[in-house]
Amino acid sequence: MTNPTNMTNPTNPTTSGATLSLHPDRLLPADPGTRAVARSLYEHVADLPIISPHGHVPPAWLAQDTPFRDPASLLITPDHYVTRIMHASGVDLADLGVGQGDLSEEASRRAFRLLCEHWPAYRGTPMRLWLEQQLVEIFGVDVVPSPETADQVYDAVADWIGRESSRPRALMEQFDIDFLATTDDPCDDLEHHRHLAEDGSFTRTVVPTFRPDKYLEPAAAGWVDDVDRLAEVSGSDTGTYAGWVAAMENRRTFFKERGAVSTDHSHRDLGTEPLEDAEAERLYARARAGQISAEDGARLRRHMVAEMVRMATEDGLTMTFHPAVFRNHHPGTFARYGADVGADIPVSVEATRALQPALARYGTHPNLTLVLFTMDETIFSRELAPLAGFYPSVRIGVPWWFIDAPESIKRFRAAVTEYSGFTRTSGFIDDTRAFLSIPARHDMARRLDCGFLAELVTQHRLSEEEAHETAAYLVSTQPREVFGL
Amino acid sequence: MTNPTNMTNPTNPTTSGATLSLHPDRLLPADPGTRAVARSLYEHVADLPIISPHGHVPPAWLAQDTPFRDPASLLITPDHYVTRIMHASGVDLADLGVGQGDLSEEASRRAFRLLCEHWPAYRGTPMRLWLEQQLVEIFGVDVVPSPETADQVYDAVADWIGRESSRPRALMEQFDIDFLATTDDPCDDLEHHRHLAEDGSFTRTVVPTFRPDKYLEPAAAGWVDDVDRLAEVSGSDTGTYAGWVAAMENRRTFFKERGAVSTDHSHRDLGTEPLEDAEAERLYARARAGQISAEDGARLRRHMVAEMVRMATEDGLTMTFHPAVFRNHHPGTFARYGADVGADIPVSVEATRALQPALARYGTHPNLTLVLFTMDETIFSRELAPLAGFYPSVRIGVPWWFIDAPESIKRFRAAVTEYSGFTRTSGFIDDTRAFLSIPARHDMARRLDCGFLAELVTQHRLSEEEAHETAAYLVSTQPREVFGL
Amino acid sequence: MTNPTNMTNPTNPTTSGATLSLHPDRLLPADPGTRAVARSLYEHVADLPIISPHGHVPPAWLAQDTPFRDPASLLITPDHYVTRIMHASGVDLADLGVGQGDLSEEASRRAFRLLCEHWPAYRGTPMRLWLEQQLVEIFGVDVVPSPETADQVYDAVADWIGRESSRPRALMEQFDIDFLATTDDPCDDLEHHRHLAEDGSFTRTVVPTFRPDKYLEPAAAGWVDDVDRLAEVSGSDTGTYAGWVAAMENRRTFFKERGAVSTDHSHRDLGTEPLEDAEAERLYARARAGQISAEDGARLRRHMVAEMVRMATEDGLTMTFHPAVFRNHHPGTFARYGADVGADIPVSVEATRALQPALARYGTHPNLTLVLFTMDETIFSRELAPLAGFYPSVRIGVPWWFIDAPESIKRFRAAVTEYSGFTRTSGFIDDTRAFLSIPARHDMARRLDCGFLAELVTQHRLSEEEAHETAAYLVSTQPREVFGL
Repeated sequence: MTNPTNMTNPTNPTTSGATLSLHPDRLLPADPGTRAVARSLYEHVADLPIISPHGHVPPAWLAQDTPFRDPASLLITPDHYVTRIMHASGVDLADLGVGQGDLSEEASRRAFRLLCEHWPAYRGTPMRLWLEQQLVEIFGVDVVPSPETADQVYDAVADWIGRESSRPRALMEQFDIDFLATTDDPCDDLEHHRHLAEDGSFTRTVVPTFRPDKYLEPAAAGWVDDVDRLAEVSGSDTGTYAGWVAAMENRRTFFKERGAVSTDHSHRDLGTEPLEDAEAERLYARARAGQISAEDGARLRRHMVAEMVRMATEDGLTMTFHPAVFRNHHPGTFARYGADVGADIPVSVEATRALQPALARYGTHPNLTLVLFTMDETIFSRELAPLAGFYPSVRIGVPWWFIDAPESIKRFRAAVTEYSGFTRTSGFIDDTRAFLSIPARHDMARRLDCGFLAELVTQHRLSEEEAHETAAYLVSTQPREVFGL
Repeated sequence: MTNPTNMTNPTNPTTSGATLSLHPDRLLPADPGTRAVARSLYEHVADLPIISPHGHVPPAWLAQDTPFRDPASLLITPDHYVTRIMHASGVDLADLGVGQGDLSEEASRRAFRLLCEHWPAYRGTPMRLWLEQQLVEIFGVDVVPSPETADQVYDAVADWIGRESSRPRALMEQFDIDFLATTDDPCDDLEHHRHLAEDGSFTRTVVPTFRPDKYLEPAAAGWVDDVDRLAEVSGSDTGTYAGWVAAMENRRTFFKERGAVSTDHSHRDLGTEPLEDAEAERLYARARAGQISAEDGARLRRHMVAEMVRMATEDGLTMTFHPAVFRNHHPGTFARYGADVGADIPVSVEATRALQPALARYGTHPNLTLVLFTMDETIFSRELAPLAGFYPSVRIGVPWWFIDAPESIKRFRAAVTEYSGFTRTSGFIDDTRAFLSIPARHDMARRLDCGFLAELVTQHRLSEEEAHETAAYLVSTQPREVFGL
Repeated sequence: MTNPTNMTNPTNPTTSGATLSLHPDRLLPADPGTRAVARSLYEHVADLPIISPHGHVPPAWLAQDTPFRDPASLLITPDHYVTRIMHASGVDLADLGVGQGDLSEEASRRAFRLLCEHWPAYRGTPMRLWLEQQLVEIFGVDVVPSPETADQVYDAVADWIGRESSRPRALMEQFDIDFLATTDDPCDDLEHHRHLAEDGSFTRTVVPTFRPDKYLEPAAAGWVDDVDRLAEVSGSDTGTYAGWVAAMENRRTFFKERGAVSTDHSHRDLGTEPLEDAEAERLYARARAGQISAEDGARLRRHMVAEMVRMATEDGLTMTFHPAVFRNHHPGTFARYGADVGADIPVSVEATRALQPALARYGTHPNLTLVLFTMDETIFSRELAPLAGFYPSVRIGVPWWFIDAPESIKRFRAAVTEYSGFTRTSGFIDDTRAFLSIPARHDMARRLDCGFLAELVTQHRLSEEEAHETAAYLVSTQPREVFGL
């Protein structure tokens, strides 16, 4: 077990009493000449509106303008980026409120205290930077979190929560979020989105994203029930593969009517190998009978993904791929707490061969946009930049999840820019369920992109004017272009 | 589709009217102390003659001293590095002259205009730097390419093409290219090379390279015809595997007589697993009958590659390996335009196990040099540096194709130097068919190597005198040593 | 063959006569502001005692306080890091003393002369830096090694060897090595360790490490004899799998009694898939009969590794994994010189899937510590940081062997810190059999970690006080915590 207090000097604890502030040059390159350029670039993009085309904010929060409950369930409990570091240090997820329903003040305060005690364990991580920025800019905290300051910080957050101006809709304004996409089940009725779209008092755009993963995993437990439900909702009999296709098309149309601009896909691999029609029907029938093997399930799933690419050429919804994660790696944690609590671990991924069948058919289709995210950095220079540097349909997703972090973002730009330029990336996505962290995440991405551009300028590989244009392009134009806004 | 004009400010386009110039410190490290060292290192190697031991310049150009035709077919049409970025932006390759035969002035000008319009899409890429250097140093252009300046730039290039001093042989002198290797089919009669060797007025060295790939892919379409042709040219009956071996030895000898110093090999993997003689003959017979499976074709190919290693120990030709590319990834493009138009995409590669059979037999043979290139950067530190740091026959090829670029070259040196030093690399190869870009490509490599060495100096890991020696060694001594010049 | 003299200017050899000295700022970042911070951090940790929880120093040296023999067998012959670079340059290992038994003064001097002649081949490598530091700090040499200075350097080392103060125990004091673990066979009687523990005049701690690899490879030659010997030593009949388990438990207990704090494991993969009991017994019986296939041998080995994890939860010995090396890659070298002479080459490795069975069972066990080393850098950000950032039992081993080097260490910190912080790494291990290089290796690690921390400080991602705490934590607290000292 790690004891975080091992990292502090008990006779002279550095953190107690220290002032918390945000340095205006944080994350910018250290070399003074490069920093000056980076600062100038950043100043011009720092205040541009946020476009968030992929994330996990619950639409109900905005539709109902729900006040936040308490500091832990606002900042800790639902955010597996934050809880997993404490879990690795030996903290039980239950003590952070995970799986505990509504938290009492005592439970919330205890979880918050654990975060403050483990503050040194976050050194060097982006979570530390995102939390600091929230503490200072949103809650007005000016002390470093520590066992001594835990209650003071907690009280500041609790006080903030109680204000009228801390409601989700007010924050959309305060954060200047122009566009926000949520992530939704194809069977969802999207009533919250309808409500938001029809509410004239809400001037920001919030749209759903079509996330059909579970309907494309015919060997997974629950799939038969899921496609039964899909039949109910779509009115299309999903007893055959052809019916499944019709149901999917029906729901995509519905999502598009509700404002969706993209579909999101996360499977173990990027395979798109199609099957003969008869084989697809045969495997589909076996799956309906609950008798498909894992291997055949994967074959049918790859066929279904290829079908989704075909649909995208017709309805124009941008496809984002977030592949290659071993979900629920620790069964005991899954049994106690369910999914999405920090126990998902990436695996390697292959793109060149896997995507070839789909790209052979549709790669130059003018209506298609495929955004390929990865946590396997090896494919950035080896596969994704070469693919995106040839196929007009392919865009490279910016670093995501475990690599949405300063050094990873620098490696990403250095790896993909040389053979695909700046125009073939996706624009930043925050992919977060931590609503309050959205400004800090976008701010970090802007600082790092400006730092990268500044290095090109000081190495005389780009003019400063071009760097200014490119910085603004990455923040504003590119995500609009990629997601068809 | 990407619209490159999205990256420029339409009310104040930065590029129109801006002056194009080359900063003397471009690509050198930003830290002032390190830059001063790098500049000093670079100044001492900047003007050393170019040695180009692997590339794709057509020998006919030099043998016949053919004048270049027009700006597009000189700088755009045949250069897939350049065309693919525009293709990704939605430009049809035909509009760039690809597959169109000789271009009319109108067609050439249109292609050139497309390049200038898409200039912002090249930001951050090496193509941008190579083109800029050509525009300034060769054509004397001093305006930034843009829609407004396209015709002016085109005219400058066209004017230059018309001069007597712009012929290939004059450029060999102007560029100070001491040694240039072309890439040739084993059945080629190498008449251009004979002509050049016998022409007393031509004082530079141009030699062929033996590139036998297609004769080593027994499962590929056309293989039977190819080895039939090989029989004709070599006089050895290629109806048996033994005959194939004799034919290959015959052609290697011929190439060596014509000056060849190396053979070049590009297959999907690096396998060198040998077969029993009888099994090799059996598979060869199946291949001759057009009945070999893809899998057996790969097994026989790996045996043939091992045979090539054996031949290299006897005739001393350096072997270069350029593996792991998925050729013609987009069938529609292949059908319309053929191979080598930018639709090849890398895949991962493995060296430790794949090369073990050949290295077990020949790895310490004093006559053998194997140069291992990769676009899968993961093997630089994991496999190639350890192999080259033990086997006297193994050299690590410098970054190639999609990783022949500033950040990639820095990663390469950082990855391989620590466990194989500077003496185990290949020297720079440009691998280009864009003749005019050769000086810019070698210049970039020299700048980046000097930058890397300068960083070692300022971190007190190398003395400045050692860095000077090493910089010159990498440019001049190393390629001569590796290719036996 | 590489001729190292190609890198020196024969008319003005830089190295002859040049003064050898160590710059106090070596390896620190070049940017002056960052360097100042790094220097301050380094000054506070430079003199902290060395903790070396994994390495290959022979315990007999310390138990018997054996004087060293001669310069070559002290610095060259047993150190494959040093010999392999010369081997790659064409030097026969025999000429470096490998496999030659005790060296005559002539042979030792000749080997030493070869090292000095090949000094330029080490430019840019960590061996160069470690050797320089030894030459200056231990032997008082102040000339750069070269053909001209070889005898002078040799004589200085030989003179030093003759002194009483150059014995191993005196060096433990001089180097301030608080804790040193050796690597030992489970059948070893650990008499040297008993002797050291009982010797009141020896105040440093030297403990064994349980390294059972060969007993876990049932398909390997010699395994039957090895487990027979294990039966003799443990008193447990290893004729059955259950007996093998009991024998292993017996020897672990014995090692723990002799002070062991960890077990070390190096197999081709990280697999931990368990077998049914009956299947394990069945495969074990086949292995005892010498009839197990390579594939079944690997299956049984993965089961045995999982068994070791179970034992670790019971006895609390930390487990270190050093996987994925192709041992004895060159059979000719193995036949002449045996193992561990520099012909081992890494291969890729996978952790997420391979470790899942063991982590599913034991990953949150409070008694378990698994330290995962890798030379496949691709898994640092993709798999190891995510695993160690969730599982309290998982720690990320610092760079090892071919990546124990400056640029690799920087890449490591940049790759793993962002999603697992500083608390999830292992502390530095030197893993060396070159006793005299231990201070230089730890010093390099300290300098590089301080450089990394300094960069976080100058980018305002960490306060300078936090960086000071973290630097000391990495040197002292972390290895004590991970190895339970």
